[in-house]
Amino acid sequence: MKALVYHGPGQKSLDERPKPTILEPGDAVVKILKTTICGTDLHILKGDVPTCTPGRILGHEGVGVVDAVGSAVRAFKPGDHVIVSCISACGTCDYCRRGMYSHCRHGGWILGHKIDGTQAEYVRTPHADTSLYHVPAGTEEDALVMLSDILPTGFECGVLNGKVEPGSTVAIVGAGPIGLAALLTAQFYSPAEIIMIDLDDNRLEVATRFGATKVVNNADGKAVDKVMALTNGRGVDTAIEAVGVPATFVTCEDIIAPGGVIANVGVHGVKADLHLEKLWDRNIAITTRLVDTVTTPMLLKTVQSKKLEPKRLITHRFKLDQILDAYETFGAAAKTHALKVLIEA
Amino acid sequence: MKALVYHGPGQKSLDERPKPTILEPGDAVVKILKTTICGTDLHILKGDVPTCTPGRILGHEGVGVVDAVGSAVRAFKPGDHVIVSCISACGTCDYCRRGMYSHCRHGGWILGHKIDGTQAEYVRTPHADTSLYHVPAGTEEDALVMLSDILPTGFECGVLNGKVEPGSTVAIVGAGPIGLAALLTAQFYSPAEIIMIDLDDNRLEVATRFGATKVVNNADGKAVDKVMALTNGRGVDTAIEAVGVPATFVTCEDIIAPGGVIANVGVHGVKADLHLEKLWDRNIAITTRLVDTVTTPMLLKTVQSKKLEPKRLITHRFKLDQILDAYETFGAAAKTHALKVLIEA
Repeated sequence: MKALVYHGPGQKSLDERPKPTILEPGDAVVKILKTTICGTDLHILKGDVPTCTPGRILGHEGVGVVDAVGSAVRAFKPGDHVIVSCISACGTCDYCRRGMYSHCRHGGWILGHKIDGTQAEYVRTPHADTSLYHVPAGTEEDALVMLSDILPTGFECGVLNGKVEPGSTVAIVGAGPIGLAALLTAQFYSPAEIIMIDLDDNRLEVATRFGATKVVNNADGKAVDKVMALTNGRGVDTAIEAVGVPATFVTCEDIIAPGGVIANVGVHGVKADLHLEKLWDRNIAITTRLVDTVTTPMLLKTVQSKKLEPKRLITHRFKLDQILDAYETFGAAAKTHALKVLIEA
Repeated sequence: MKALVYHGPGQKSLDERPKPTILEPGDAVVKILKTTICGTDLHILKGDVPTCTPGRILGHEGVGVVDAVGSAVRAFKPGDHVIVSCISACGTCDYCRRGMYSHCRHGGWILGHKIDGTQAEYVRTPHADTSLYHVPAGTEEDALVMLSDILPTGFECGVLNGKVEPGSTVAIVGAGPIGLAALLTAQFYSPAEIIMIDLDDNRLEVATRFGATKVVNNADGKAVDKVMALTNGRGVDTAIEAVGVPATFVTCEDIIAPGGVIANVGVHGVKADLHLEKLWDRNIAITTRLVDTVTTPMLLKTVQSKKLEPKRLITHRFKLDQILDAYETFGAAAKTHALKVLIEA
């Protein structure tokens, strides 16, 4: 089969690889129909994720059809259409039994990281019963690829951890796909204001179409002053960090109101300054989270009821044969205006 | 009247000052019976709190008798025995109506900071109806001085923010009075383990008497390794920072388990490193808080029922005349083994 293979920092190619087979009784093999590329894949390609070793098929998002299942799989059978979650969960370890699937002792984020992923014609998914979701009949599958990672990540790590609530004031720092996923799902809870902060006017324009009530371009480095002015000097109740660099995290520290929550979503490669000398008495919380994908069924219902239209995040389409072009388009988002690129296998 | 007055960094004296009078209809004047010294008073004397200006009478803790009340005061009358809360709350601003008295727009921590405090024969307390508490008949007043600040601070900022729960594993970094207050009140929630970390064997011995299940002396700098060994490599569910320096905060980052909470209680003068490169995917929370004193009535009931014996924190007693000696004893705690020093006016 064809597969996008990571060959070490800066190196990838579309290779011919053997079709995966069932290795454990809980496994499924899924024929991929649609997949996509995540910012995390670009991090891997930069060499930022040393736990991902050369030879790995990338990708942790996808929708497909079950091709084969192991003897222990109960909830899925060949022919079932499924969403592949970016998080594989054994369902039985101590973390899984607390609902913290992200830290599953026999899974977590392993697809396209520690085991071969979804940017291929087929993928082996361990713990199928607790890591796949049925595609409801009649649901458009393009949209559901966004439920593998980006929507639960924006929702769980940003909106839920950030305690967005009716009437509250939210700032989202970073209007990339994850920031926009947080923007879309924050609206479930009817905040009064959602202020989107980015450096790219195109993305801010998208944010406005997606429901941001205010946008701030930080090209002049004055986002903090602008947000404070927009909030009568009070700051925001929720600040969602959706970039993953120290400067944007410190922006969140600077705009958070007393009693507020900074919800980190970004993947960070280095430490940030925590200004405790200003924050110790501000009654704030800072949260971090790798998505648990516990809300995937909830999000699926919002897609079915059209409260959420994840397809709006898809800007480009490619065939698996063209995945190198897809990477190029996604990697040059400032120029191509790419948000999510859909890849059909 | 006699009063302990701050005269700028490093300078204080016991001065003769006029007895305070009612200035606003919500004021009370309280004759102080007992007061104490807080670590924050030492911070002020070092010059760390520039909002406290020379000429200020220090002190934000105390028990006394109401001497006079303004025309708007309803809940208190002359002769009532009261606990003076370290937080003055107007009860009507937006923050007060959310229960965030610490950020009251007309109060907050002002006593012994922005207005004259309790280390005197008399104190004027603004917003008396929502800032004083009645001393229940028959309750020992020495113990209740600990309810002005230290016990609600350890409880709200450490134990409640830290989400201590039955069976959980707690580490408290710093076995000073505030750390010990957190230790005493953490036991309300029956955690499985409370690991106390300090550099002083005497304080760790006190912690053991007060209910710590394990103690770790970090004189060798190996507290992190020791805590990880004590928790089978997992870390702790709650890490309470009760010192207020970057190194102890980073210790909390190093020992927190996935899903855990770092509850900051310490007063910080400088920033700390936040190791987001290790913490972004750990599903943790970090909280900060200036005590709201919303739990003072709850704590009062635990004192009455003898679940909590705050008197155990009192190691030394002085008369107001001897308050300079009291400061010396409290400031040299490593040598004198002082925890809280009680001062009788």
